[in-house]
Amino acid sequence: MNYRIIAKILSRVMTIEALLMILPVITALIYGESIVCFLLTMLIAGALAYLLSLLKPRRKDLYAREGFVSVSLSWILMSLVGALPFFFSGAIPSYVNAVFETVSGFTTTGATILTNVEAMSRGLLFWRSLTQWIGGMGVLVFIMAVLPLAEEHSMYIMRAEVPGPLVDKLVPHIRSSTTITYLIYICLTAMLVILLCCGGMPVFDSLIHAMSAAGTGGYSIKNLSVGYYDSAYIDIVIGIFVLLFGVNFSIYFLLLMRKFKKAFSNSELLCYIGIVAFSTITIAINILGIYGTPGRALRFSFFQVASTITTTGFATADFGLWPSYSQCMLILLMFIGACSGSTGGGIKVSRLVLLAKSTKDEIVKLINPRKVTAITMDGQQIDAATIRSTQVFFALYMVTTFIACLIVSLDNFDFSTSFSAVVTCISNVGPGIGLVSPSGNFSIFSDLSTIVLSLCMLIGRLEVFPLLLLASPSIWRRK
Amino acid sequence: MNYRIIAKILSRVMTIEALLMILPVITALIYGESIVCFLLTMLIAGALAYLLSLLKPRRKDLYAREGFVSVSLSWILMSLVGALPFFFSGAIPSYVNAVFETVSGFTTTGATILTNVEAMSRGLLFWRSLTQWIGGMGVLVFIMAVLPLAEEHSMYIMRAEVPGPLVDKLVPHIRSSTTITYLIYICLTAMLVILLCCGGMPVFDSLIHAMSAAGTGGYSIKNLSVGYYDSAYIDIVIGIFVLLFGVNFSIYFLLLMRKFKKAFSNSELLCYIGIVAFSTITIAINILGIYGTPGRALRFSFFQVASTITTTGFATADFGLWPSYSQCMLILLMFIGACSGSTGGGIKVSRLVLLAKSTKDEIVKLINPRKVTAITMDGQQIDAATIRSTQVFFALYMVTTFIACLIVSLDNFDFSTSFSAVVTCISNVGPGIGLVSPSGNFSIFSDLSTIVLSLCMLIGRLEVFPLLLLASPSIWRRK
Repeated sequence: MNYRIIAKILSRVMTIEALLMILPVITALIYGESIVCFLLTMLIAGALAYLLSLLKPRRKDLYAREGFVSVSLSWILMSLVGALPFFFSGAIPSYVNAVFETVSGFTTTGATILTNVEAMSRGLLFWRSLTQWIGGMGVLVFIMAVLPLAEEHSMYIMRAEVPGPLVDKLVPHIRSSTTITYLIYICLTAMLVILLCCGGMPVFDSLIHAMSAAGTGGYSIKNLSVGYYDSAYIDIVIGIFVLLFGVNFSIYFLLLMRKFKKAFSNSELLCYIGIVAFSTITIAINILGIYGTPGRALRFSFFQVASTITTTGFATADFGLWPSYSQCMLILLMFIGACSGSTGGGIKVSRLVLLAKSTKDEIVKLINPRKVTAITMDGQQIDAATIRSTQVFFALYMVTTFIACLIVSLDNFDFSTSFSAVVTCISNVGPGIGLVSPSGNFSIFSDLSTIVLSLCMLIGRLEVFPLLLLASPSIWRRK
Repeated sequence: MNYRIIAKILSRVMTIEALLMILPVITALIYGESIVCFLLTMLIAGALAYLLSLLKPRRKDLYAREGFVSVSLSWILMSLVGALPFFFSGAIPSYVNAVFETVSGFTTTGATILTNVEAMSRGLLFWRSLTQWIGGMGVLVFIMAVLPLAEEHSMYIMRAEVPGPLVDKLVPHIRSSTTITYLIYICLTAMLVILLCCGGMPVFDSLIHAMSAAGTGGYSIKNLSVGYYDSAYIDIVIGIFVLLFGVNFSIYFLLLMRKFKKAFSNSELLCYIGIVAFSTITIAINILGIYGTPGRALRFSFFQVASTITTTGFATADFGLWPSYSQCMLILLMFIGACSGSTGGGIKVSRLVLLAKSTKDEIVKLINPRKVTAITMDGQQIDAATIRSTQVFFALYMVTTFIACLIVSLDNFDFSTSFSAVVTCISNVGPGIGLVSPSGNFSIFSDLSTIVLSLCMLIGRLEVFPLLLLASPSIWRRK
């Protein structure tokens, strides 16, 4: 293990975090709020950056293990330091809770322990939503730059899911494609800010909600979340934009390259649209009795489906009060999650498509044991390693969910609360059902559960394996 | 597809079912009850057997596909016909409910739609528990005779999980090893009857509970289940025996062959014992406040853990009232299930051991992409097909659970009820939490949910794949 290169990466991450805090400082200054908590944090981040930079790397080798370890540690360190402004300002008196809130930000989850978000200062609110925007960017870097390190192997995304010939064009030019991805991300965010302003949302609110939406995070600055604005226009605009942020970003590359046919025949995209349509319609029928007209039912259903499948977690209604089918469908959507290669979380639609295909393949083999079969997706053959890795991923995801649920249940809340809290955290959604529905929050949990749920968010965000690697003793052995 | 051989097998199954009904008829005669409902059913079963036997098979070939289809259809047909006595006698007025009760019997689930089981006649109670005893036997035949048909492939049990050299000795002599298995099954049942009688349980009750325990079914004849007898002796005897029925029967072969060391070093067995010990102790600590003394807490905890992990479903307490951790742990045990090659249901301990091993392997490969690894279990190398099949099984199990939960949630009960009802059915346990806890029952569900839950029981019992095959169009095509 090349420890020194990891230290160098962490040092750079700390520098970036310190610099990013200039933005909430500016916000705080504009609104005449205290900036002490930010300055103190910047000092600490700067000191850490300096200390870490003292370990000069001797070699420049960066293999999969270094990649995964540095990504995991970056996310953890960023959250530990990013939590300090909340703690120093006294806005969140418990450091464990402050870390939860920040992990929830950087992992673009959006689960909150705040009982009254509106009481928080503008600077802190800005920082809170900025973590989600940065988190969304971070995930894109992670997908673009780190996952391909396990090239020989099967962390799958670049090889299996970025459609076709694009792979060859992207991988050798990670820098330039990262730039394009960021541009798309920034442009979409800017468009959303403008559209929200046009809908009558104040500029500050528009900026906050756009950042939270871009990261598919879901932090709002209102206790009623997006429901506060009670505007069909805003609901529809945000609903459509979170769905756009939940699409595999390589689709946008294809569109830029004018390969429209290829983009719109992508099987993950089609499946994603299908799931959204199915759940929007069935939930709308299910909640028709509550909202009276089909139009209103469709509006609330569409918003919640979009917000949940993309693992954003904004709410325009307390779906904890919806009928059982709707709640159950939303929990299922939390598991499913968005498309791979997007800022969304969850298991990812493409993994489920692969699982369905490998199940079909298994049945064919059961009927005709000697038949030679191959699993293809969008015209490309998927190799055995990718399929195996996807299946292990799925199993780990479920097992982690159940074990975490067991620990969280020690707090003795009802099963719906414990289970949905874990699911919503590991899938980076935000709210769940029961006591953690949109009208509730995560302040009810003990410190142990808060830490477990924070770990769940990190596990889900980093696609399970990197954090497991951290816990594996063999990775720490020097060769 | 060789339809005629399937007809022949089904004809034989109907004959056996008609003959088996002689036993409840005798019981009914002893207690001076009406036997009309049984005679009518025997007539129908006999007629079906005759009609099916008219299709004389032209070829004798019985491949995997015929094996799976005939097993699936046998279980379905046996349940449809076996439900008739309940329906004809008027004890269960709805045929859908009667089928649910019978599927729950033959699949050794033990979930009931009866609100007052004590009101039922002795003959019907006997038939109800007999279905579980037959179901347990049926599962053993299924494991011994049908699964190995997919020899070339990986329905895994014979190859992966019956330890070592035994496989070679068993497979060529299916008949004789089936006989030995039956003898073990019958002897254990007889021992349990005697031990229960010694504990002061009436003979009829002992017979019923022994049959339900042997099949790891869990039908009782008391509304309070085993809790009615309120005897520590009975609790411990039944607890130990259900655990014995949940052990892979090949372990008993090894013991008969005096290969003690091999038997007791079996990794599935050790893991099974470890899970039982861990959950018994942690649940006992969790419920200490309810039961006062550690002794009583351990007694109730042990019984419920044994009853749940073996997917039996007897109850001595309403664990629906236990703290959240205990309920959550029990739901986890439902998923885990017993050992492969036993009469228990669930995912099976050996599959989880395999999943854990393949996860570890995946992580090793992530760190050292070029490393050649092999997964071994009890000294034997497990091939890729077995691992893939296990992973697909796990994924299908979870996906089926969630989809069924979605349909059941249309009845608008709370999430805990819908979810645990599906889990308890697919894992063939019996009671769940919420409204289907031991003090509740399954009569609350609509016909649609009742049918879905019945299908879940069949899917779980037949290890998912055979029923999926039935639904696959390609299997019905003539070659």
